Amino acid sequence: MPQFLDHADADFETRFTALLNAKREDSPDVDATVADIIAQVRTHGDAAVIDLTAKFDRLTLTPATLAITDAEVDAAIATVNAADRAALELAADRIRAYHARQLPADDSWTDDTGATLGWRWTPVSAAGLYVPGGLASYPSSVLMNAIPAKVAGVQRLAITVPTPDGILNPLVLLAARLAGVDEIYRIGGAQAIAALAYGTETIPPVDKITGPGNAFVAAAKRRVFGKVGIDMIAGPSEILVIADADNDPDWIALDLLSQAEHDESAQSLLITTDAALGRKVAQAVETHLQTLERRAIAGASWRDFGAVITVPDLATAAALSNRIAPEHLELMVADPTKLSEQITHAGAIFLGAWTPEAIGDYVGGPNHVLPTARSARFSSGLSVMDFVKRTTLAQMTPDALRAIGPAAETLATSESLQAHGLSVTARLNKLNRKT
Amino acid sequence: MPQFLDHADADFETRFTALLNAKREDSPDVDATVADIIAQVRTHGDAAVIDLTAKFDRLTLTPATLAITDAEVDAAIATVNAADRAALELAADRIRAYHARQLPADDSWTDDTGATLGWRWTPVSAAGLYVPGGLASYPSSVLMNAIPAKVAGVQRLAITVPTPDGILNPLVLLAARLAGVDEIYRIGGAQAIAALAYGTETIPPVDKITGPGNAFVAAAKRRVFGKVGIDMIAGPSEILVIADADNDPDWIALDLLSQAEHDESAQSLLITTDAALGRKVAQAVETHLQTLERRAIAGASWRDFGAVITVPDLATAAALSNRIAPEHLELMVADPTKLSEQITHAGAIFLGAWTPEAIGDYVGGPNHVLPTARSARFSSGLSVMDFVKRTTLAQMTPDALRAIGPAAETLATSESLQAHGLSVTARLNKLNRKT
Repeated sequence: MPQFLDHADADFETRFTALLNAKREDSPDVDATVADIIAQVRTHGDAAVIDLTAKFDRLTLTPATLAITDAEVDAAIATVNAADRAALELAADRIRAYHARQLPADDSWTDDTGATLGWRWTPVSAAGLYVPGGLASYPSSVLMNAIPAKVAGVQRLAITVPTPDGILNPLVLLAARLAGVDEIYRIGGAQAIAALAYGTETIPPVDKITGPGNAFVAAAKRRVFGKVGIDMIAGPSEILVIADADNDPDWIALDLLSQAEHDESAQSLLITTDAALGRKVAQAVETHLQTLERRAIAGASWRDFGAVITVPDLATAAALSNRIAPEHLELMVADPTKLSEQITHAGAIFLGAWTPEAIGDYVGGPNHVLPTARSARFSSGLSVMDFVKRTTLAQMTPDALRAIGPAAETLATSESLQAHGLSVTARLNKLNRKT
Repeated sequence: MPQFLDHADADFETRFTALLNAKREDSPDVDATVADIIAQVRTHGDAAVIDLTAKFDRLTLTPATLAITDAEVDAAIATVNAADRAALELAADRIRAYHARQLPADDSWTDDTGATLGWRWTPVSAAGLYVPGGLASYPSSVLMNAIPAKVAGVQRLAITVPTPDGILNPLVLLAARLAGVDEIYRIGGAQAIAALAYGTETIPPVDKITGPGNAFVAAAKRRVFGKVGIDMIAGPSEILVIADADNDPDWIALDLLSQAEHDESAQSLLITTDAALGRKVAQAVETHLQTLERRAIAGASWRDFGAVITVPDLATAAALSNRIAPEHLELMVADPTKLSEQITHAGAIFLGAWTPEAIGDYVGGPNHVLPTARSARFSSGLSVMDFVKRTTLAQMTPDALRAIGPAAETLATSESLQAHGLSVTARLNKLNRKT
């Protein structure tokens, strides 16, 4: 059973704070191993990647077979059944439509001094997307990472996906095809991250790397950060459901379990104004845990990190939610829009009982790569913005320089940066000579 | 003298690549020291911060004197002369006006299934700004960091600024006042970053930390990343000037020196279509280096990392610039707007000869915190966007769920995430029972 907390209890604040600060993940320290793998790939390029792939994935490659060919992709995706293909296509279309609205606008204006100011957005030229192998190889994640990059205008989008024993995942390849991925390499682990960041004879380097991975991949991404951009390092997934009394306990139980089944370190929380509903939800979770395929994982997550919290009113629920800053927040209340206006920190909000979080994982449209571990206090989910960057623009006229140049000279002097000031003075002198 | 490269030379590509990959910075490994300082602050709070400030800044504090009071700020800024005050006010007004245009827009729409989708931006609740002490304590940097935070709507903005021997910098305090900073603490180093990230009895924790600092500060920011958000870790500054023949060599020389005088590791590059102009600029640099106050620093930077590159045409200049991805790019050419359209990677562009980079450091309006070390390939300068985060929104109706729910069920099954599918199925079953 999960924890039960009541906002009215004397020890509530202590227990809630403990829940907030619970350490849910023990990352193994693989940094030395990863540093060595990156050094090998930087020094030996393809040869190192091939050696490491033989070692970890039991797969013998050559430089010519590092990439999965178009023909191999064609053959693999021909095996996908029509229902799976249609579902992926629907997901891709909806994700593309949502993200197309995120493209930021350039701006340019002339101010009262005559200076023209503005900025311009440009796409990252080349991006790499890491796709895990094995059980955690999710085609939906390929769509969620690759489509924003392509919407942003990334010209060269490469995927790395390990294929242990050489086995391809047709749905991952179909997702890559639907998203418009340009290159696919059958490599994984820290060696794939190193190859994307530094390049090899066969794999040109990229400018930005995104995508989930195990501890080795996460450590490698941290290490290559600076040489390339990276997305966030995701922690275990979380969901918070805020529910009033008028709800089906079974729906809430399944929503909580859909997070818990991801990972033993996942966290599923319910905040409700109705203690009786809370008890019914916990019972429904136990019932489903008897038959759920991933009951061992989901059960451990729910037992170790789950909680049912009773509050006197929805304002209290919103305040607690803002302290949690949940990755996923379901508002299963009569007026979810009104309640959402009180939410200041959350990765994604699902409004109303007809919007289970799983819709957002696949076909809703918004991205499912979201800030975990309370980082929604300061960061956002993956978006088109992760694949563009802004160049600021400024153009002075002689009049504009006359108007604001002297202030720059004054500040340069106060900061003891003489050449800064002189670069303005030289221009102002020319203007003064002319007048 | 700097390097001279000519695009026509046989060894150009080799030398240009070497220039691109030159390692300009040797960061001392202070990570163990920093880890210890952070642990001390986490364990002992105020007491640790006070001990470390006594040790490093020769300053005896108590919890009550950690913060600089409003009265102290009033007294310090009363000593600022009218010209300095007016210059800072002009800078603050212009920076505020520029950044006010960066506030991103919320969005909400209903798609053809009846689903309502969108997103909402919210400010980070509390931010901390690190301001270096001593020579690198730049009031302009206080404005450039603090104003975007306040424009974004950050409610609580705290500054830490070390005051070795207790000496306050009136211009830094005036900049903080003009920018609307809420709290100022007279502490620095890794202990200040730890106090901002984890909080002490006196200093409440923040959600995001920005601002420049020495190797200890940079290492501390890397360590607390995840607990809080951080801005980029800046490297040494760079400028690239692209100039055609019709230019005053003295202006270009001063612009190059205004970057070189920052730091011996700074890099100043000139790309020109006119080899004779390149030689004249180099001569002008040497002349100024004889009298410049910071000639030791600027001379070392120019000698070790400066370069003058001759190219046959501006298209070649733009292509080389895009490989450099400069932090600052001046386009001193007849039609700078046209040339700017060929620029795909740069932190900030200064268009035309009347726009010295120093204008952008102080009073232009755009931010002067910009991506260094070629990271303009994948990142942007500091902006309002660094102090806001996006929450995605989705609301299904029964009809919308009927339309797209089955695809989510299919994908959940294909990814072996049974509870994900069941959370959709339970709702669809209710709809099907009703019809």
